[in-house]
Amino acid sequence: MKRRLLLVSNSTLHGGGYLEHCQQEIQEFFGKQVKRILFVPYALHDRDAYAKTARGKLQSLGYEVDSIHEASDPVEAVRKAQGIFIGGGNTFRLLKTLYDHNLVSEIQKRVLQDGVPYMGSSAGTNVSTVSINTTNDMPIVYPPTLAAIGLVPFNINPHYLDHNPQSKHMGETREQRIQQYHEEPDTPSVLGLREGSMLLVEGDKATLLGSTKARLFSRGKPPTEYEPGSDLSFLLAEGK
Amino acid sequence: MKRRLLLVSNSTLHGGGYLEHCQQEIQEFFGKQVKRILFVPYALHDRDAYAKTARGKLQSLGYEVDSIHEASDPVEAVRKAQGIFIGGGNTFRLLKTLYDHNLVSEIQKRVLQDGVPYMGSSAGTNVSTVSINTTNDMPIVYPPTLAAIGLVPFNINPHYLDHNPQSKHMGETREQRIQQYHEEPDTPSVLGLREGSMLLVEGDKATLLGSTKARLFSRGKPPTEYEPGSDLSFLLAEGK
Ligand SMILES: [Ca+2]
Ligand SMILES: [Ca+2]
Repeated sequence: MKRRLLLVSNSTLHGGGYLEHCQQEIQEFFGKQVKRILFVPYALHDRDAYAKTARGKLQSLGYEVDSIHEASDPVEAVRKAQGIFIGGGNTFRLLKTLYDHNLVSEIQKRVLQDGVPYMGSSAGTNVSTVSINTTNDMPIVYPPTLAAIGLVPFNINPHYLDHNPQSKHMGETREQRIQQYHEEPDTPSVLGLREGSMLLVEGDKATLLGSTKARLFSRGKPPTEYEPGSDLSFLLAEGK
Repeated sequence: MKRRLLLVSNSTLHGGGYLEHCQQEIQEFFGKQVKRILFVPYALHDRDAYAKTARGKLQSLGYEVDSIHEASDPVEAVRKAQGIFIGGGNTFRLLKTLYDHNLVSEIQKRVLQDGVPYMGSSAGTNVSTVSINTTNDMPIVYPPTLAAIGLVPFNINPHYLDHNPQSKHMGETREQRIQQYHEEPDTPSVLGLREGSMLLVEGDKATLLGSTKARLFSRGKPPTEYEPGSDLSFLLAEGK
């Protein structure tokens, strides 16, 4: 399988600029052969402003940016893309818009069959997985399904957050929320990517990158922790 | 309209027991005429354990409890109910189960037409409103719609949380999430009920109760704060 993915937990790390904490990984991922990246700004309301931010940063790393919202035919834009980057925002709005424009199967085909490199950040990482069942976002719109692009056979929880024992807030912790997901039958593993971490997938090899550990939740098993640099390729074999 | 509602932000306040912080309001709300309360435990996976917890607490306040999951015919149980209490947990699971059992319209009818008192806590508060678009919960299952029981013409965000300026977490604040909802067209107001607060609705009168302020978000307007005791009846006229 030609699949190449860079799935980032968060676009901005506290105290840093947009995509600053992962800029080296972005350059290594897209390399010198990709000249233009197709940016998908659908997760935010102000697409022009969002495209401007993404364009500014990616140009500084050596890439021209086409924003899909400026294309007259979004499906055609995906067909021609050398590389794809889907940014964060609201995951429900993003997934619904991808379905509204018939882009889900097209992106899947381009990435899995043609080997077009796919980078996602936050909501853009959520939609690359089996489903958006483990997003943190508010369901501000109703997508036709929670099933997503399915570039990997597991789910991700971006911005994974450890419980703060000092907190007096009584809403569910992130871990409790993911455990509620696993109370449902036939639910895939969920990789909790803390802010600062990202997953690099090349074919059937998956590696945890970045500066923070990741926490893996699998149905019926205790959670496990992985250090940056860990080989997580076993997750790609899930469901096989 | 006979409508009587007690919509609680959270069932447990930090340092207190289950429903302890609102037990006086519960007794005033259900009064002496209601002898039996129909409890809906669908938001949690372990319904038996949940019913036991609710039964223990409500019995101590003088009410017998029938849990709907023990009824052979849930619709019939709603038809016979003297009072209804829907508990918290996962809002998506709760709403889906209410639709699976054809309970949404039946509960609506009993509360709005027959005046059966309805108490909700957290997810049980979410499902009493226009829609669950402003739940904090993870979308662990896919309900047939986000439209809810519609006992009031606005939405609520339970467990409303102020941004902690010390936090280094970069996920959206609660206020940002609600503002993203209001970027969508024709979205109703959202009452942010902080933990410790609750809304009492009697006919066309709504009053904020409890120990904490509430924050109201209306599309295209700056947020406003309301003290406990505030008359929020104007919210019931929304959309008229
Ligand atoms: Ca988000
Ligand atoms: Ca909840």
